[in-house]
Amino acid sequence: MRLDAPRESTGAATIPFGMLPVEKALETVLAEVSSLPHEDVALADAVSRLLAEDVRSDIDLPPFDRAAMDGYAVRSGDVAAAPAALEVIGEVRAGQWPDLPVGPGQAVRIMTGAPVPPGADAVQQVEKTQPLDEFRVTLLAAVAPGANVALRGSEVRAGDVVLTRGRVIDPAAVAVLASAGHSRVRVARRPVVAVLVTGDEIVDVSAAPGPGQIRNGNGPALLALARAAGGDARPLGVAPDRQEAIEAALRPALAADVLLVSGGVSAGDYDLVEPALLDLGARFLFTKVAIRPGAPLVFGRIGKTLVFGLPGNPVSTQVTFDVFVRPALRKMQGARVLARPRVGVELLEPVHNRSGRTSHVPVRVRSEDGRLVARPVRSMGSADLTAHARANALVVIGAGRSHAEAGETAEALLLGSFLEDDGAPL
Amino acid sequence: MRLDAPRESTGAATIPFGMLPVEKALETVLAEVSSLPHEDVALADAVSRLLAEDVRSDIDLPPFDRAAMDGYAVRSGDVAAAPAALEVIGEVRAGQWPDLPVGPGQAVRIMTGAPVPPGADAVQQVEKTQPLDEFRVTLLAAVAPGANVALRGSEVRAGDVVLTRGRVIDPAAVAVLASAGHSRVRVARRPVVAVLVTGDEIVDVSAAPGPGQIRNGNGPALLALARAAGGDARPLGVAPDRQEAIEAALRPALAADVLLVSGGVSAGDYDLVEPALLDLGARFLFTKVAIRPGAPLVFGRIGKTLVFGLPGNPVSTQVTFDVFVRPALRKMQGARVLARPRVGVELLEPVHNRSGRTSHVPVRVRSEDGRLVARPVRSMGSADLTAHARANALVVIGAGRSHAEAGETAEALLLGSFLEDDGAPL
Repeated sequence: MRLDAPRESTGAATIPFGMLPVEKALETVLAEVSSLPHEDVALADAVSRLLAEDVRSDIDLPPFDRAAMDGYAVRSGDVAAAPAALEVIGEVRAGQWPDLPVGPGQAVRIMTGAPVPPGADAVQQVEKTQPLDEFRVTLLAAVAPGANVALRGSEVRAGDVVLTRGRVIDPAAVAVLASAGHSRVRVARRPVVAVLVTGDEIVDVSAAPGPGQIRNGNGPALLALARAAGGDARPLGVAPDRQEAIEAALRPALAADVLLVSGGVSAGDYDLVEPALLDLGARFLFTKVAIRPGAPLVFGRIGKTLVFGLPGNPVSTQVTFDVFVRPALRKMQGARVLARPRVGVELLEPVHNRSGRTSHVPVRVRSEDGRLVARPVRSMGSADLTAHARANALVVIGAGRSHAEAGETAEALLLGSFLEDDGAPL
Repeated sequence: MRLDAPRESTGAATIPFGMLPVEKALETVLAEVSSLPHEDVALADAVSRLLAEDVRSDIDLPPFDRAAMDGYAVRSGDVAAAPAALEVIGEVRAGQWPDLPVGPGQAVRIMTGAPVPPGADAVQQVEKTQPLDEFRVTLLAAVAPGANVALRGSEVRAGDVVLTRGRVIDPAAVAVLASAGHSRVRVARRPVVAVLVTGDEIVDVSAAPGPGQIRNGNGPALLALARAAGGDARPLGVAPDRQEAIEAALRPALAADVLLVSGGVSAGDYDLVEPALLDLGARFLFTKVAIRPGAPLVFGRIGKTLVFGLPGNPVSTQVTFDVFVRPALRKMQGARVLARPRVGVELLEPVHNRSGRTSHVPVRVRSEDGRLVARPVRSMGSADLTAHARANALVVIGAGRSHAEAGETAEALLLGSFLEDDGAPL
């Protein structure tokens, strides 16, 4: 069964007939996504994956009243009228447990990270003390009750949720998981993403393209994109433009969670991906989206497998991956946040959009005088790979807008490279 | 030999005596960094690494005049007064090479990605044509010269630099490398980063901490941070607070590019990391930095190995890694951009800094009405791991400033989690 794209009015009169608005297409994709099963992995292997359950601490943090400075544990009332001499009754280091309570007029030498002995209610830092002799110290300054003491449970109570499910396990989360006693972590299984590139014109990266041929850039790029989105990406190679060859290449991958096929999805007579997918039992949810670059974009499913027929133009491939496939892969893994951040940026140059589609313009974003500014990258269009590789964000111009002025604030979708780049002109 | 931190005036009169300003400390670190040797790796293994040489294309891109649409290749002059009927003399698909030139009054059916035949100077998209019979087509609209044709070499000329060294090999760069024929890529060797955690109080993640003990959060976090920065990170385990134990743990790692030791670097009597490093031949460049969190921060070298003694407080550990260690690891790998982006953000709440040091305040940054806004995360201080794990950026308040007002624009250092997070209140 084949469902055509909805043709009802979308509110954006300029969208070409039969094309689904980007927002509706993304909604349609996400509505088809189910959560993957969970698995327990060792903490070190959980890095960059999605946490599948709320994580609680089994202990208070800190687990005891903890000295935040090297110095002396004292009763703050004893030193209110500093300088004051106190009797030093002992010492406690990190990893030790104090056996002596601090009585009136007494102090205990204490090291950062050590438990504060009973009786003491503050730590005076060593720089504000002066040893008198082996058994006495002068506190040169008063200290407020609670000063330089991290109270037991002040950060976390035993049983508190310390990390919520759906977050990425970044190094900061690793520290929390380790401290809370989680040597194994429940995460979503990685989605298996099979990647097929189609086209008679495609040759391998290591080949010298003959007349009319180009090298396979989309395969390696899609594998890298899928892996960066948490996928277990598997190459299916390159299929020529013959329907039976495409079907044969896809058939072993029908157990994948996601099939990505690049090329062969425009309306041309030799665009055989849709017929091949239909033959394999695909049900299509849409076949055209009002996005630029990338209008010929097919989405459907074969059984439980989500299938994306991505345009063969290399920039279109990458943009449609970021806009539709990545959020789907993140949702499968239970991510709370599915898309990259969208931020307001001031355009340094005007941007045109004569497509009637939601346009994604490659730009370099940087911070300047406290605001984010964006300069479009010179691009020759949706095949201009090098322009896309120079961008650290895409400015999004709505389907109903033909241009945006310099000085205007526009929305930018940050790319994965944004954190690695300073956005300065190249 | 031990060099004390410079004591000359730094322009920031409030910086505590003997502490190096953050900018000078970073300069000092980077001045000690040498570039790592390069190695050639397969394209798939190069993802997320640093490109070590400028990359040129061996071919023009596109390699031929390429149809950007399905339609008819025509001589634009023939259809200036459209509608116009043309003789269809053949067809060319992607992967084929046209053998017939297009003469006056002629057209060739052409598919996206196919070479435009000689004689034709434009492609009219199929939607604006109407077949007359088997051998003729009516062009319903005129087409400008060059329309829907991506000219050979218009994106890249053979020999052009398509990627410059020092950039991260992200998926967009992978597409360029593949298209330009680079199945192997020259990258910097990964820096070997050995990680030792010290402290009598530290127990393993899987253990139940006894009285006065805490679990080892810093080890797993530092390993994850080093790997995310491109390092080949190797755990040295946990050493107790005995100098000979610390030395024994470090000795097998003296061939590493970088040693990271957490804990044991404040001025306390049981902070044995500096003596241990001295015994192993360390030359120190600084031992205190005016940073908060993280003042006790030791940097030096043992032979060619860079050594960082990081504070044991878990947030201090992570912040000092991001501010000092990550840029060093990136510079070793030849990165053009060493630090995460610093962006201007509007503070939604006031921020205080009574430390006299450059303060790094955990915040959540999000885009709101076209500007970036930042709300501080509730934190109990430099041991509050869970606060740090909720942040997606650190607001940086200079050492000379005691506070910043709500509404003020401050500088934020984006964290690795920024792209995974929407910054909405948790």
